[in-house]
Amino acid sequence: MGIEVCRAVDAAEDLELVAMVDQGDWLFNVSDVGAEVVVDFTTPDAVMDNLHWCIEQGINVVVGTSGFTEQRLDRVRGWLSHKPGVGVVIAPNFGIGAVLMMQFAAKAARYFESVEIVEQHHPKKVDAPSGTAAHTARLIAQARAEAGRGAVPDATTDEVPGARGADIDGVRVHAVRATGLVAHQEVLFGTTGETLTIRHDSYDRASFMPGVLLAVRSVPQRPGLTVGIDSLLG
Amino acid sequence: MGIEVCRAVDAAEDLELVAMVDQGDWLFNVSDVGAEVVVDFTTPDAVMDNLHWCIEQGINVVVGTSGFTEQRLDRVRGWLSHKPGVGVVIAPNFGIGAVLMMQFAAKAARYFESVEIVEQHHPKKVDAPSGTAAHTARLIAQARAEAGRGAVPDATTDEVPGARGADIDGVRVHAVRATGLVAHQEVLFGTTGETLTIRHDSYDRASFMPGVLLAVRSVPQRPGLTVGIDSLLG
Amino acid sequence: MGIEVCRAVDAAEDLELVAMVDQGDWLFNVSDVGAEVVVDFTTPDAVMDNLHWCIEQGINVVVGTSGFTEQRLDRVRGWLSHKPGVGVVIAPNFGIGAVLMMQFAAKAARYFESVEIVEQHHPKKVDAPSGTAAHTARLIAQARAEAGRGAVPDATTDEVPGARGADIDGVRVHAVRATGLVAHQEVLFGTTGETLTIRHDSYDRASFMPGVLLAVRSVPQRPGLTVGIDSLLG
Amino acid sequence: MGIEVCRAVDAAEDLELVAMVDQGDWLFNVSDVGAEVVVDFTTPDAVMDNLHWCIEQGINVVVGTSGFTEQRLDRVRGWLSHKPGVGVVIAPNFGIGAVLMMQFAAKAARYFESVEIVEQHHPKKVDAPSGTAAHTARLIAQARAEAGRGAVPDATTDEVPGARGADIDGVRVHAVRATGLVAHQEVLFGTTGETLTIRHDSYDRASFMPGVLLAVRSVPQRPGLTVGIDSLLG
Repeated sequence: MGIEVCRAVDAAEDLELVAMVDQGDWLFNVSDVGAEVVVDFTTPDAVMDNLHWCIEQGINVVVGTSGFTEQRLDRVRGWLSHKPGVGVVIAPNFGIGAVLMMQFAAKAARYFESVEIVEQHHPKKVDAPSGTAAHTARLIAQARAEAGRGAVPDATTDEVPGARGADIDGVRVHAVRATGLVAHQEVLFGTTGETLTIRHDSYDRASFMPGVLLAVRSVPQRPGLTVGIDSLLG
Repeated sequence: MGIEVCRAVDAAEDLELVAMVDQGDWLFNVSDVGAEVVVDFTTPDAVMDNLHWCIEQGINVVVGTSGFTEQRLDRVRGWLSHKPGVGVVIAPNFGIGAVLMMQFAAKAARYFESVEIVEQHHPKKVDAPSGTAAHTARLIAQARAEAGRGAVPDATTDEVPGARGADIDGVRVHAVRATGLVAHQEVLFGTTGETLTIRHDSYDRASFMPGVLLAVRSVPQRPGLTVGIDSLLG
Repeated sequence: MGIEVCRAVDAAEDLELVAMVDQGDWLFNVSDVGAEVVVDFTTPDAVMDNLHWCIEQGINVVVGTSGFTEQRLDRVRGWLSHKPGVGVVIAPNFGIGAVLMMQFAAKAARYFESVEIVEQHHPKKVDAPSGTAAHTARLIAQARAEAGRGAVPDATTDEVPGARGADIDGVRVHAVRATGLVAHQEVLFGTTGETLTIRHDSYDRASFMPGVLLAVRSVPQRPGLTVGIDSLLG
Repeated sequence: MGIEVCRAVDAAEDLELVAMVDQGDWLFNVSDVGAEVVVDFTTPDAVMDNLHWCIEQGINVVVGTSGFTEQRLDRVRGWLSHKPGVGVVIAPNFGIGAVLMMQFAAKAARYFESVEIVEQHHPKKVDAPSGTAAHTARLIAQARAEAGRGAVPDATTDEVPGARGADIDGVRVHAVRATGLVAHQEVLFGTTGETLTIRHDSYDRASFMPGVLLAVRSVPQRPGLTVGIDSLLG
């Protein structure tokens, strides 16, 4: 991922790549060359030290490294409280498409009687449904509850076990697995006489780059800690 | 359905509507006006007498009435054995789209490593999956077995119950229910680097008409009993 | 439409149908029975008198009648300026799905490099593309311009005329026509490694009812004139 | 492609990889190790000599090299006439999904009133529509003509130029271009009240491998020249 980020930054006309830091390299050169933003795709072991150092130097940071517990986020907030001008964006998922899909789904959930999720992945995936599908289902369930919507209509009385999918907070989720697929998700909303479908197809890890660049461009204007790229999207 | 069939025959340039017979009417006028084909959408109680009478009169019949057991089909075969020139087509489903979907699915099944079915219906449906989806799954399972294909690949070890759908003869089938939907089915085939999807959308009972007209046009050239419109399609 | 609205209001648990007024009936009984909201699906000839009378009586109005020019809207605003507590919602389209599709499309337009629209309708439609598709394209073009996005990438040099669709403000729009279709639209967004698709399927005029009910529930809290149901959707 | 083919053959349980021949290597070792089938993904310059030598040695050949004119095919037929037991399969496209899509489309074309094609590719593609889409359209037009079908219904009188797509032998073809897409095609058939859609998604060049293996397994039982993998598919 690190190399792909460097390439993407380098290819963007409004951004300049001033340093590439690999495992074992010192971070000093990052500040020497006047970096305004550091992008960290390292490991849970290394990321906290990197973050602390960058914040102390007054450099904004975009973090794609995993493993951020609420406790770790609190430590980052503590460091930032002493550096009010510095911004940090930490995101578990930089896919703009996936994040917009969830935003749109949460909004549409209030207006439709029915909703179901069908996610489709390659057959080497061990969990079903995907984490994104389960998370989308929970966002939808919460939006329905806030809008005072009850259970979705369903007259099924004669079911071959599993046909109606998994029940995640009252939202049915179906997981399709097939060779050839990469990572896809469809959220189907229905009301009298019409349906609205939001579909996301991810073909490639490169799909994270536009979200990383969005974060790089946004973080200097966002002092403090931002978790997820959701709030960067309008 | 009877009235819709009359309208469809009347609207077809190459067919002529010579009589409409409702409950309580005599069938005599059908033969008086020289009908070559009778279309029967009546009830399980009435259909056998109608069939017997038509076959005796040497009139071909297209039957959309339900309730044909193997026993009933044998009785029809018996009557036809005495009238070698007469043709009878009895079909549980006249939807050309659904029948082609099943034919294509059975053929593709031999060449793809993975296959799953997603059917989508209105939420008043009581059975899940639909009869058509279960039937398609069985056709696919049979075609895979004949082609020597083993189980579809699936690494799932961590499943929320139901996420992976119903198992029909080794084929996973997912049933979506939502207000606004009518009757839809998607069969997804996957192999290395590609997928092939066959989708059928039925919006209206009128979708049966092209299949009824196909049967009406075909039955004079098909003496004996034909079950299903499958063999009429190429 | 009038009858369908009456049915939908009658079926809603939180609403009460207090009067049905047909052509030639007096509106007096509407105020006699204490109506809080009047729904007007009449004709361009009748609607202005109805509106004037209702506003004078202090009754809120939801209008689905067509033919509202900017001039007519100004007259309604004038009447409302004397009755600050009264709300009027006038909408050319009460389909929640279509309106959300356009809102989501306008938002996603800022974040994706590519976008195209494919609309699908029955073959009796005389205009191509549909008004909704052209309107969506314009909203997308405006959002792209505001986000500083240039032209979509397109290396086509060898085109069979028409293959790349109609150009509406720089957005390519494709119109599919086929028997069996009703009214469908798909907006496809693409960026590196991923696509996001928003699809709306309308099967039935009944699809307007949830939007009408939303307007009926919202209008008492929205004094003044509201054009379109867009702003009622969150 | 050569290396990918070697990997695929090596991974297949019922096949054995006995030799890999690169540019500049002699073909002798191929016959020394008793190869039953040679797979040729070379260049138009090299392929004819390879073919001639293999046929002379009595070795079956599967060819994915491009540039086969009718003249070249005739020369291959001439060589094979002296070696009646040898089989050669030459295919411009080994994608099973694409070939089945075309077969199914040609069959369905006879039974549906309407048909249109929407193909979707990455924006670096220079031709629109794709060769596969144009070929599919021609197959459909031919099947409709054979079935006595006239023009598809289309009431369009008010068209923004290009909205209705390219006209290929009377079949409308729409070409969508967007970043993130790879190679996709949808054929939509419609008749009263229903539609049937056949969709092919190709994500990767690896999608050719199942077709190459099918040809390798089939060619020993198919003496003479086979052009395309169409006839290998049932």
